[in-house]
Amino acid sequence: MIPPLHWNDEAFRVDLLDQTRLPVEEHWLEIETPEAMAEAIRMLRVRGAPAIGIAAAYGVVLALRGEDAASPQQTALETIEMLAQTRPTAVNLFWALNRMREAVAAHPEVSRGALRNRLLEEARAIEAEDREAGRRLGAHGLTLFEDGMTVLTHCHAGGVATSGFGTALAPLLLAGDRGVRLRAYVDETRPLLQGSRITAWELGRAGVPATLITDSMAGHVMQQGRVDAVIVGADRIAANGDTANKIGTYTLAVLAHAHSLPFYVSAPVSTIDFDTPDGAAIVIEERASREVTHGFGRQTAPDGVAVYNPAFDVTPARLITAIITEHGVVRPPFEATLRVLRDERVAAAQ
Amino acid sequence: MIPPLHWNDEAFRVDLLDQTRLPVEEHWLEIETPEAMAEAIRMLRVRGAPAIGIAAAYGVVLALRGEDAASPQQTALETIEMLAQTRPTAVNLFWALNRMREAVAAHPEVSRGALRNRLLEEARAIEAEDREAGRRLGAHGLTLFEDGMTVLTHCHAGGVATSGFGTALAPLLLAGDRGVRLRAYVDETRPLLQGSRITAWELGRAGVPATLITDSMAGHVMQQGRVDAVIVGADRIAANGDTANKIGTYTLAVLAHAHSLPFYVSAPVSTIDFDTPDGAAIVIEERASREVTHGFGRQTAPDGVAVYNPAFDVTPARLITAIITEHGVVRPPFEATLRVLRDERVAAAQ
Repeated sequence: MIPPLHWNDEAFRVDLLDQTRLPVEEHWLEIETPEAMAEAIRMLRVRGAPAIGIAAAYGVVLALRGEDAASPQQTALETIEMLAQTRPTAVNLFWALNRMREAVAAHPEVSRGALRNRLLEEARAIEAEDREAGRRLGAHGLTLFEDGMTVLTHCHAGGVATSGFGTALAPLLLAGDRGVRLRAYVDETRPLLQGSRITAWELGRAGVPATLITDSMAGHVMQQGRVDAVIVGADRIAANGDTANKIGTYTLAVLAHAHSLPFYVSAPVSTIDFDTPDGAAIVIEERASREVTHGFGRQTAPDGVAVYNPAFDVTPARLITAIITEHGVVRPPFEATLRVLRDERVAAAQ
Repeated sequence: MIPPLHWNDEAFRVDLLDQTRLPVEEHWLEIETPEAMAEAIRMLRVRGAPAIGIAAAYGVVLALRGEDAASPQQTALETIEMLAQTRPTAVNLFWALNRMREAVAAHPEVSRGALRNRLLEEARAIEAEDREAGRRLGAHGLTLFEDGMTVLTHCHAGGVATSGFGTALAPLLLAGDRGVRLRAYVDETRPLLQGSRITAWELGRAGVPATLITDSMAGHVMQQGRVDAVIVGADRIAANGDTANKIGTYTLAVLAHAHSLPFYVSAPVSTIDFDTPDGAAIVIEERASREVTHGFGRQTAPDGVAVYNPAFDVTPARLITAIITEHGVVRPPFEATLRVLRDERVAAAQ
């Protein structure tokens, strides 16, 4: 398990891995104030939707660190507003801060110390629930792999983006504990190199034997029989199973199909968007051309060259062997099986 | 046409494009001595097998630039030996220098001025023959494309690697002259980025509308219907048509097949190795891991990470729609059609 942060109870602070210094340096920041946490979120020192939510929740706790004459409820609510400004499009951030806001609202009269304890409890619960979901996702995923297998993965959907287990990487990070030896090929994942910068570092840290390749080598390693399966995360899964994920995922799905290899998507149920009927309804974000032309602090393409830089692509459901969630593994026809998964959850919650 | 060098008759020198400064700067070197030419070859200022051969041939001419009491034949032969040391594995270099050596041997008694003229004539012939082959290759390739088409290409098999037309890029570079408008998507081609550094620059220089993408985007642009065909060069073509080319080529062939797009290999007949029965007999060169981990002057992967960095992959003949050569376009079954191409050439030469 590779968590992005640790609550340090003795020092009443958060020890937070500075992900911007990876992979060259594993540097831990000592975060003692909500302002320092806001800076860390804003500067992408902590990244990945679940990890941001957890970091923000602890950031609220830090507002009640010392003694102060002000109303602790008021201080906490102001801190929540401040932290909500750090990453304006991060849905998980608002979801976590809403839980903190509700915890404050439920205790309008308690003392500073009591509120502090209650908020710390809530932040820990948010972290623990995510960790438990990751553990269950990893356990479900592991049912698909056998000892000695090699999987190919793309981008980063691992521990430090969540509370420690990740999504696509959860089966790999959990395998060691279960006595299953898995190996990995890691796509570097241009343009932003999340694969080489973060996934390769994380698997090395977790003791999973990993080999780094450029994205263009994926077909070749499959052709050579070096890979048994492909596993990727998801940014959004449509109701029919069509999956939007980091650019390059679709190419891997086509390659896996051509080599008769299973292609797995691993994501929490919250990623499934039942209001999106299929992939055609998913708008592909285009990003700045400099990510391609000046990707590493150096200009590597001619001035003024036209660049196409889509952040995601859409893999059609017909190329997906199974979708791994924290509530189980579902297989085609996804239009039906994803709905069953949802209905079972709704029933279980009632 | 984008030639890598020009013979400057007035100044009796070679004006040579410094390819190491691309794509940021188009800097031309004034090469006046064989030593300066040797340095340019050694430092990859001129690269690509045909271009190196042509550069070395002109380098021999430069040995007779001024006046000197020494035997001009002796001077030329010593220069040929010196230039042969610059790139020890470049077959085209030795082939071109052999032609220069034979030209010296055929004129043992002539004056310095006469030998200089004869050697200049031979270097110009080597260049002109390569250019004519490139023009014919491009013309044959153009028969496969229609006005308004968009092709996707990988790595660099273009003008400055040859005498000006290239191989994979020859149809694109020739299209404008023939009134055919083609557009291109250019894979950046990790790890060494020949696509973004050289191909994108060259197509821009030739006025061919080109859009740069990362290698991982090729599947997505095909899925979106943005591409009509794929065209690549070749490092070696086996007798059955299996083709070794820059890593990533096989992935493109699988993608083209999955999208029912034609996949063309464009290469001179000299690339076909009839002594290699099929792709299984081709040894794949593995290169240093630093090309992947420190590709841009900055470390982008963790210390000590395992890296697999094959320089080439092999595309099986069954995924190749046609092979374009300077003697015509051949289609499957390549085992038979490549042999016919060879036999026709042998017959024509007799």
